[in-house]
Amino acid sequence: MSDSTGHGHVVLLSGGVGGAKLALGFDRLLPRGALTVIANTGDDFRHLGLDISPDLDTLMYTLAGIVNPETGWGCRDESWQFMAALEQLGGETWFRLGDRDLATHIERTRRRAAGETLTAITADFCARLGIGSRLLPMSDATVATRVDTDAGLLDFQDYFVRRRAAPVVRALHHDGAAGAAPSPAVLAALADPRLAAIVIAPSNPWLSIAPLLAIPGLRAAIAAAKAPVVAVSPIVGGAAIKGPTAKIMAELGLEVHNAVLARHYRGLVDGLILDTVDAGETAAVESLGVRAATTATVMHTLADKTGLAAFTLRFAATLA
Amino acid sequence: MSDSTGHGHVVLLSGGVGGAKLALGFDRLLPRGALTVIANTGDDFRHLGLDISPDLDTLMYTLAGIVNPETGWGCRDESWQFMAALEQLGGETWFRLGDRDLATHIERTRRRAAGETLTAITADFCARLGIGSRLLPMSDATVATRVDTDAGLLDFQDYFVRRRAAPVVRALHHDGAAGAAPSPAVLAALADPRLAAIVIAPSNPWLSIAPLLAIPGLRAAIAAAKAPVVAVSPIVGGAAIKGPTAKIMAELGLEVHNAVLARHYRGLVDGLILDTVDAGETAAVESLGVRAATTATVMHTLADKTGLAAFTLRFAATLA
Repeated sequence: MSDSTGHGHVVLLSGGVGGAKLALGFDRLLPRGALTVIANTGDDFRHLGLDISPDLDTLMYTLAGIVNPETGWGCRDESWQFMAALEQLGGETWFRLGDRDLATHIERTRRRAAGETLTAITADFCARLGIGSRLLPMSDATVATRVDTDAGLLDFQDYFVRRRAAPVVRALHHDGAAGAAPSPAVLAALADPRLAAIVIAPSNPWLSIAPLLAIPGLRAAIAAAKAPVVAVSPIVGGAAIKGPTAKIMAELGLEVHNAVLARHYRGLVDGLILDTVDAGETAAVESLGVRAATTATVMHTLADKTGLAAFTLRFAATLA
Repeated sequence: MSDSTGHGHVVLLSGGVGGAKLALGFDRLLPRGALTVIANTGDDFRHLGLDISPDLDTLMYTLAGIVNPETGWGCRDESWQFMAALEQLGGETWFRLGDRDLATHIERTRRRAAGETLTAITADFCARLGIGSRLLPMSDATVATRVDTDAGLLDFQDYFVRRRAAPVVRALHHDGAAGAAPSPAVLAALADPRLAAIVIAPSNPWLSIAPLLAIPGLRAAIAAAKAPVVAVSPIVGGAAIKGPTAKIMAELGLEVHNAVLARHYRGLVDGLILDTVDAGETAAVESLGVRAATTATVMHTLADKTGLAAFTLRFAATLA
């Protein structure tokens, strides 16, 4: 379970901003190369003719230390001249693309059109940005999250960005997931004998983690892995740390309670980490056969992030 | 020949920076809507997955008053964050695309992929930028200038920008020109009974004007037009005002003399405007059956540009 440095390897399943915080914690805690992040690409879409991968990019910018610290996504020291000029030309401006960020989309689109996989392009970008961890899209196939709402069946970014997650969610679909295969790199990471833990980041379970688990081969590889599987809950004090998790749970008729999350992940996770304020929900979680542990899960500082990563590893060791 | 304002309409055939100066002169001199600029699109290319039309854009930015006054191309108050980020990702950076400029290429590429013509997109962009003149690509078909050089057969931008026009030119080809049709808008502009003059801008005759004239239907429409055809020479004092015109003439075995230009345009133009410093070349030009006139042709100020435009119109009137 440990390599020569005394640390095991970790696979983190992650969405965007929330998960990226824990990804950075592991990246800084572990020796270079010991972390593999498998990113949700269900949010990916084609916009203005460009292939955009919001969660991959948020993770990449975060791990490279160039993320916008105020938003948690996009680039630090970003400028918006492109958007201003596009608006003048009558182009669509509801999805904001910064001038620096555009380089990622344009170069990725060009390389994909030339036949490279998203996995290969992402690996090359990460190497050029000096990232030590491995960042993998969940699949090289297209999986598109679609949101069935009271405003109709919406593409993910239409729901999430253009309509600011306002429509009432009835159901989520992951178009293409059933036929999508995890990449060889994803399967190899999950089968790595050095793996100390598979961690599900405190990302939105329904919007960001569900697309990963909707890929049959990925779910099966997690289930088959020998390493313990630990989820960090995004539900803190009966609300979501960030984003519309609580709103969506309510719309899906679910109580905003960690026992509901434990039931959602049951059969897949061995343990669930709750925030200290939710210590009272521990018993309900454990009654479902999911081990629970509590710590401070709200991450502001880098120390918060590495601290939560270290706690997660220690908890995983007790489940092994 | 004149509309109710007392001015006739003008069609200007133009390449990029040099021609754009005279285009601006006519735009400011004539009543709104009386100028139609037909732009070379032989320099157009696909780069980074984007459809780029350098001459069209230089003309558009110039007429909109947003061109970079120092270079004569690109946008005023431009920033280069995209290029910096692209370089970090290992992308190609030999063709510089500014952040504001990118909006034009991305939106044009998106709209062309959606089936719109370059003519329609350009008209819409110009309307949004408040341009009163009409700006037309020479054709909606692809015509690609290729340069046969001592370094091989090169795509135009490879020769012109990446290699800075250094290779020795043996011949120029205009791929697709023979089968390309001028757009209906181009044909209508050239057949307009209000036309007072068809003017060939002081653009590079071999690189920028030749692609226009290589389209059989466009050349025939100029020849069939009732309005006089006047060229403004880019050769001043045995050199080119700008760019590699003189270098290319030498490489093609041509003397850098206005009589050579008159011979090149013979049968198509009725008159040639020379710079005052070349008054000594007038007789040689006229001996070829091309009427000559001299004035100050080097344009620095807006007054230089409107002045040359007015001179051109007066000269054309003597040829009608």
